[in-house]
Parts: sequence; C-alpha cells; structure tokens
Amino acid sequence: MTGHFKFNVEASDGAARACVLFTPHGELETPAFMPVGTRATVKTLSPRDLEEADAGIILANAYHLYFRPGADIIAAGGLHRFMAWNRPILTDSGGFQVFSLGDTARITGEGVSFKSLYDGSDHFFSPESATRLQEDLGADIIMCFDECVPAGADRSYLEQSVRRTADWAGRCLAAHSRGDQLLMGIVQGGVDLDLRRESVQRTRELDFGGYAIGGLSVGEERPRMLQTMEFTAGLLPEDRPRYFMGLGDPAGIIDAIAAGIDMFDCVLPTREARNGRAYTSGGRLNLRNAAFANDGGPLDPGCDCYACRTFSRAYLRHLVTQKEILGLHLLSLHNVTFLVDLARQARAAIIGGSFENFRKNFSTTGFGSV
Amino acid sequence: MTGHFKFNVEASDGAARACVLFTPHGELETPAFMPVGTRATVKTLSPRDLEEADAGIILANAYHLYFRPGADIIAAGGLHRFMAWNRPILTDSGGFQVFSLGDTARITGEGVSFKSLYDGSDHFFSPESATRLQEDLGADIIMCFDECVPAGADRSYLEQSVRRTADWAGRCLAAHSRGDQLLMGIVQGGVDLDLRRESVQRTRELDFGGYAIGGLSVGEERPRMLQTMEFTAGLLPEDRPRYFMGLGDPAGIIDAIAAGIDMFDCVLPTREARNGRAYTSGGRLNLRNAAFANDGGPLDPGCDCYACRTFSRAYLRHLVTQKEILGLHLLSLHNVTFLVDLARQARAAIIGGSFENFRKNFSTTGFGSV
Repeated sequence: MTGHFKFNVEASDGAARACVLFTPHGELETPAFMPVGTRATVKTLSPRDLEEADAGIILANAYHLYFRPGADIIAAGGLHRFMAWNRPILTDSGGFQVFSLGDTARITGEGVSFKSLYDGSDHFFSPESATRLQEDLGADIIMCFDECVPAGADRSYLEQSVRRTADWAGRCLAAHSRGDQLLMGIVQGGVDLDLRRESVQRTRELDFGGYAIGGLSVGEERPRMLQTMEFTAGLLPEDRPRYFMGLGDPAGIIDAIAAGIDMFDCVLPTREARNGRAYTSGGRLNLRNAAFANDGGPLDPGCDCYACRTFSRAYLRHLVTQKEILGLHLLSLHNVTFLVDLARQARAAIIGGSFENFRKNFSTTGFGSV
Repeated sequence: MTGHFKFNVEASDGAARACVLFTPHGELETPAFMPVGTRATVKTLSPRDLEEADAGIILANAYHLYFRPGADIIAAGGLHRFMAWNRPILTDSGGFQVFSLGDTARITGEGVSFKSLYDGSDHFFSPESATRLQEDLGADIIMCFDECVPAGADRSYLEQSVRRTADWAGRCLAAHSRGDQLLMGIVQGGVDLDLRRESVQRTRELDFGGYAIGGLSVGEERPRMLQTMEFTAGLLPEDRPRYFMGLGDPAGIIDAIAAGIDMFDCVLPTREARNGRAYTSGGRLNLRNAAFANDGGPLDPGCDCYACRTFSRAYLRHLVTQKEILGLHLLSLHNVTFLVDLARQARAAIIGGSFENFRKNFSTTGFGSV
C-alpha cells in the first residue's frame, strides 16, 4: 500500500470488522456496499442520487469502458471527472467479462484473445494491458487481471487457473506504476478449499494493497459459496481490505460481513428495481402485485430515501406497471439506499459489539434466504 | 372564473402578454411552458426535478389515468398527492385521445363509444362523464370534452364538429361543480378561419374561465397553423388565460407567445431527449453525432441545469449511445428546463417592452425553423 492509502481496522466483533480505507478521493468506511456502474453510470442514478444514498464508493468496468466510449476519451480527465463522481471508484479489470461474455476467450501467449461483445471484433488483453487500461481510467482501486472459472470446472482446470491467476497477478503488480491507485490481488480456486488456500498463499506472497475473493457467486450452490467465502476470508491478512466480488443480496451482504469481508458489489439492487422489486425492512416486495394498487403507505416505512418519503406504493406500482422510467429510477434509488444503509447499520453494530444480535434480527425480516 | 381563481394581465407588448393566474396551488406566471405528464409522470423526471426546472404547471391526461391506474385510485387523495406535485396541474379531458388513438371512436347518443387503447375493451365518454372524471382527478385546470378533427377533414365535418364541441362545452359547464377547478372551453375549426370565428363565438357565449385553441398541430402545414393560431387568439377575451394545445418546439413557443398565447404544452422536449436530441442556445444538437465523442464542454454553456453544470457532452453522448437511462433523464431535464426558461425569458422581455427584439434575437439561434 502506497502512501496515498491507509487502512485502519477500527473495531471487530467476531470475524466481522469495521474499517476505514483512506484513498485519494476520501475515506471509505467499511463494510461498504458498492453500487455497480458498469458503463460509468449506476443504472438510472445520477451522482447526486448516489451521494444522497450515501454510497461511499462505486464500481465501474474496464472491459465495457475500453469498448465504449474507449479509454482515450476517459483518460483526459479520468473516470471521476467523466462521470462526475468525486468519491472513490473501483474498476474491475475485465477478466471476468473476457471469460464470461460471449464465450470467445482463448488464452494465447501472454494473455487472452477474445471477440468484442459490442461488434465481434478481435481484441487481446494481457495483465499488462489490463493494468495500463485501468491506469488510464484512473480509479482509486484497480483489480488484477485474473482468470475466472465457471462453477463446475474440473480440478485440473481450476488448479491451472489458480496458478495462472497468480502468475498474472505478479505481472499486474510489475506493470502497475501509479502510486495513487491501490491494486488488489484476486483469489480464485472455485469451491475447492485446498485450491483456495493455495491461491491465497500465492497471492499474499506478492503483497497486494488489498485482496479480493473472485470466482464465487458464479453458479455454485449457496452453502458452498458461503463456506468457501468464510474459509478464504479467514486466510487473508488482517491489515488489508477484503473485497468479495459479485455478491449483493441483503442476506448475502450480512453473511459476507460476518465472514470478515469489507467490500462487496452487485448489480442486483438496480436490476431488481428494473423488474419492479424493492428491498424493504419487511422483506422483498414485488410492486407489480395487485395488492399495492390502492396502498397509500410508503414503500418502506423504515426508509428515509426520496422515494419512500415522497410517494405511495400505489403510485410506485402505477409507474412500474406502466413501465415508466421514473419507477425504475425510484426503485433503484431505494434499493441502493437500502443496501448502503444495511452495510452501514452492520458497521454500527460491529462498533457497538452487537453484530451477532444485529444479524439475528435481520434474519427475521424476510431476507433469511434468497 | 370562481373565487378560487384570479387572472391578471401584468404587461403586454404587441399581442404578447405577461400574466399571472392565481390557482388553489399557487400563482402561475405566464407565458408558461407546461411539461406533459401523460400518465401522472413527466417522462424520466421526478417532481423535484420539475421544481428544479422551475416548471410552474404540468399537464396530465384524463384518458390514460382513467384506464391506468383508474380514477378511483387517484380520487382518494387527488392527483397532486398521487404524483407528489404541489404546483398547479392541468388535465386534458380525453377528447383528443378518444378521437386520435386507435381510430375506434363512434359518436353515439350522448357521447362517444371507443375501445380502450390498453385492452380493447368498450368504453363510453360523454361531456358529463369526462367532466366528472376530471373532478375526481382534481387538477386545478380542466378541459371541456371536445371533438378533435384530423387535418384535412372536409368543411361539413369541421362545421359539424365545431357545433358539437360547443354543444358539449355547454354540457361540460353544466356538469362541472367543483369551484376549485377552472374549466376551459376549447375552440375548434381546423384551419378554416370562418369556422374558428364561429367556434370562438359559440364558446365565448358560454363564458369559460379560460379558452384553449385545439385541433391544430395535428398535421396541417405550419404557416397555416400559425396564421390560424394568431387569428383565433385575437378573438379571445383579454381577461382570460389562453392555452394553445400541443405546441412545444422552441420556435413555436415564441410564435405562440407573440400571438398572445399564455400556456402551451408538448411532449416534444422529453421525446426529443429520448431520441438523444437537446435544445441549446446554439440550436438543436443530436448527441449521437460523433463530433461530440471527445467534447469536454457543457451541453449548453448558456444553461445552468444540473446536466449542463455537471457533465460534458462526451459523457452525455456516451450515455445516449449506450442507451443508458441516465442519459434520457439528463437530456429530458435539460430540454424541459430550456423550454420553461425560454417562456420565462419571453415574459421578462414582455415586461421590459423588448419582446420583438427578443424574438428577433431568438430567430438567429438556430431555431428559426423546425
């Protein structure tokens, strides 16, 4: 970790922890939910909406920005200026997208050949080029270029990917030169605990400023995902931030925090919103349900977001059933607010030494399972 | 005009005038552009966005709200509470939609039979039922149920529709009982000036609180539309608000103001936004144009809206080409702000006695024609 960053564990309660990560764009309190702004926009939300939801950090995606609008467009002023967001940003390296979108990835020589999701043209990413791309984008936290393996891959493939990911991680580290960016290593290994241990060991040897757990939430069974997450988190160094990639349902967030994860991201809150679903203190609601047609009450009586303090469920249902964009916007704003708040409440509970109690209460709200 | 309303002409400059309409939901300064919230939402914009754009009044549509969500849902708290908008609202009666959507209208007995655009079911609107519907919705300004004739109708049909509209206007007036609503009569007659004169005369005889010019902007040639508008506006009483229905391009607004129109509405600014087009002080821009890909400047240097003071054209173009909802939202916010401002600037010019000069300057901005 360079001098531009500092990471303090402020309190812990069991494995759960409350930390602060100091970045060039301010302090990030964790645990923190990171809304996903794939194409440099968190769907339907403006930066001021995200500030209102009090998101401490957002994520963007190097793969998509490489194609549209192109790194050269963004590099001039950086991603913060491009999307008018002045708090921390994390970019994903593109590894996940290269391997999961379109099924065209071929590992050749020093990197991966693949076809663009946008126009089918041929492209090549290497650990060096993915690092350089993320340096051009200029996020505060950037990720190693890794090989993400689908659920159900056989052991020899998994083993190979763990070693390749570690090899690539070393190359990313060597290629990375911007001191104002924190580069995170990524642990792979599927749900094989031995491979996870090996992956942690190989990645830790390189001494990253932070560690991510990748390759989960990709189709494996949830109990094994949770078990692997907990096992892996326990092997990571105490004094570095830990990021679990691609988890964002309310119950999953609480499980991740309990396992000692500091950061997590997911497209779920905005995707659920676009399907008319809202997270509330009473569980998940589908606004399309006719029961809400005449419901004059707020979406979530326990929430203070603009949508909840301004509109009735009846109005929100009207917007959702009529496919009005305002409905998508309001539910997105609410869902993001809900998850950011949830992580923040967990943080307060950890500091107060009552996280287990908080977790038990949460499990009665209708989010016990997904 | 009942005691809940008052209309003052504050200044005039040629035929153009600056007025104030006092309503149960506050004062409306005119000339005023009215953003259209067909289904109780101005597309992509929240009430606070509309307040920020400083829209003085918005429009909603009785036809659409009758079907979705249904007047019973809205009647409980009224449209203002339903959509959380505390400034004046105007509802259209549904006449235009009944006759123009789906081509199923049949004039029978006391009103019109038609099939729902939503599910094809049979429905019947009469002057009485359309008035009652608008009383249930509870807007500040409501419209008579009229027969709107497409451009190119023959004279005998036009003549018949003028008389039927006047007959129906009398029935709307008789059926209307809410003192806190201003009912406007509608003048028809296509582009036939004699029929327009007859329609004005028949409608004025009934003594409405305000007068609308309907049946234009429906496909006729623009010079004839403008000529008919000017001719008709000149026949309307000085001491009542005048509303030109369905006009909202920048040049049209200035022409309408010059003709002595006080209010106008159009879906154009939000529809143009959804097609990637923005009104600016330099004319209309298509954000899809590749020329903006690397343009770090604001959308409109002359505008102070959130979109213009926060983002570059390059970012807005990125959002628009990627079909990101935030792009639709930001362009809608800007376009509505632009038209509301335009009417407000015209008002200031009228008060300052410099409207002709203002109009001349405007014609050089690239909006001389559409």
